[in-house]
Amino acid sequence: MSRGRFITLEGGDGSGKSTQAALLEQWLTAEGRTVVRTREPGGTEVGVEIRELVLHHRGDIDPRAEALLYAADRAHHVATLVRPALARGEVVVQDRYLDSSVAYQGAGRVLDPAEVRSLSEWATGGLLPDLTVLLDLDPHAARARLDVARTRYDRLEAEASEFHDRVRRAFLDLAAAEPERFLVVDATRPVEEIAASIRERVRGLL
Amino acid sequence: MSRGRFITLEGGDGSGKSTQAALLEQWLTAEGRTVVRTREPGGTEVGVEIRELVLHHRGDIDPRAEALLYAADRAHHVATLVRPALARGEVVVQDRYLDSSVAYQGAGRVLDPAEVRSLSEWATGGLLPDLTVLLDLDPHAARARLDVARTRYDRLEAEASEFHDRVRRAFLDLAAAEPERFLVVDATRPVEEIAASIRERVRGLL
Repeated sequence: MSRGRFITLEGGDGSGKSTQAALLEQWLTAEGRTVVRTREPGGTEVGVEIRELVLHHRGDIDPRAEALLYAADRAHHVATLVRPALARGEVVVQDRYLDSSVAYQGAGRVLDPAEVRSLSEWATGGLLPDLTVLLDLDPHAARARLDVARTRYDRLEAEASEFHDRVRRAFLDLAAAEPERFLVVDATRPVEEIAASIRERVRGLL
Repeated sequence: MSRGRFITLEGGDGSGKSTQAALLEQWLTAEGRTVVRTREPGGTEVGVEIRELVLHHRGDIDPRAEALLYAADRAHHVATLVRPALARGEVVVQDRYLDSSVAYQGAGRVLDPAEVRSLSEWATGGLLPDLTVLLDLDPHAARARLDVARTRYDRLEAEASEFHDRVRRAFLDLAAAEPERFLVVDATRPVEEIAASIRERVRGLL
């Protein structure tokens, strides 16, 4: 196999992306695959610095600047980590990718979603995932999960619940527009059931 | 006067941009104008962090990521500092702007200059200077000036002289393409003569 597979997980905070990424990695490894688990923003050393800048800066960052910072993180991450792993035939399992930018920056903020997507495509030389798993969850349910698990919220998480409703809707619209790339999963289902649905779809890709 | 004037200075390091910006500011202030002197990268608090990241990061940053970081700095700087000053009718005198990105990132590196320019235009909502002063200097002369003034070079300055030759050529090509926006000055002329040429052109704008 000369080229790997690129699988991304999307959805709001608290929807279970990390849990499902860990279970998918376990299963792929047991199947004999080499897995690279990573995330955006912050999947590289440069990315960690960018992520810190965006999430924890005092005072507002201009929306276009914020979109450009996320795109910079993505460009560096794809060029130095994702593409080399795919070239080695490995499976990249990634927490958030361009759909997060479009959903959060485009639908959730003041920017044109098509422009935000173009930015990501320029940043990555047009690299799209082979599969994107959307863990769909009502934002109020996600909020309740986070309240249990964490005591401190970063800037994005602290924004209003109306914003999270718009993000959820944006993710669902993206999935509806590209059904062949997306697997939409109801994130309120039991963890093991969700993992089985994801494995079934991934098996078809390998 | 409902809208200010936006003047940028361009040219390689060591070409005298800071000196000329200071003299221009002095003169404009004496003429009764309110002047905002600023620079890119690093003209805002966010920009300082971005500049540090780009110039002093250990290891290479992907070229697209670098271009996106400079564009992010620009977006934030224009939105939070330049546009508000222009709206107040002030004169913004700025060290480096989009022509530096096109010359350094486009002509000097591996990226398409037209794409780099589009990125800047998206970042700024298409804001162009009323006047751009290009201080043109042979890179070998610039090198000699810097050797006297400074003992430590950052990453860009440490790159090969062939690179600086390509940057100079790129700046001159940009000026030739937009003669109505640019004033090209031979930076080997005496400081006061150069300042007088700039004042003459600026007077026509006010």
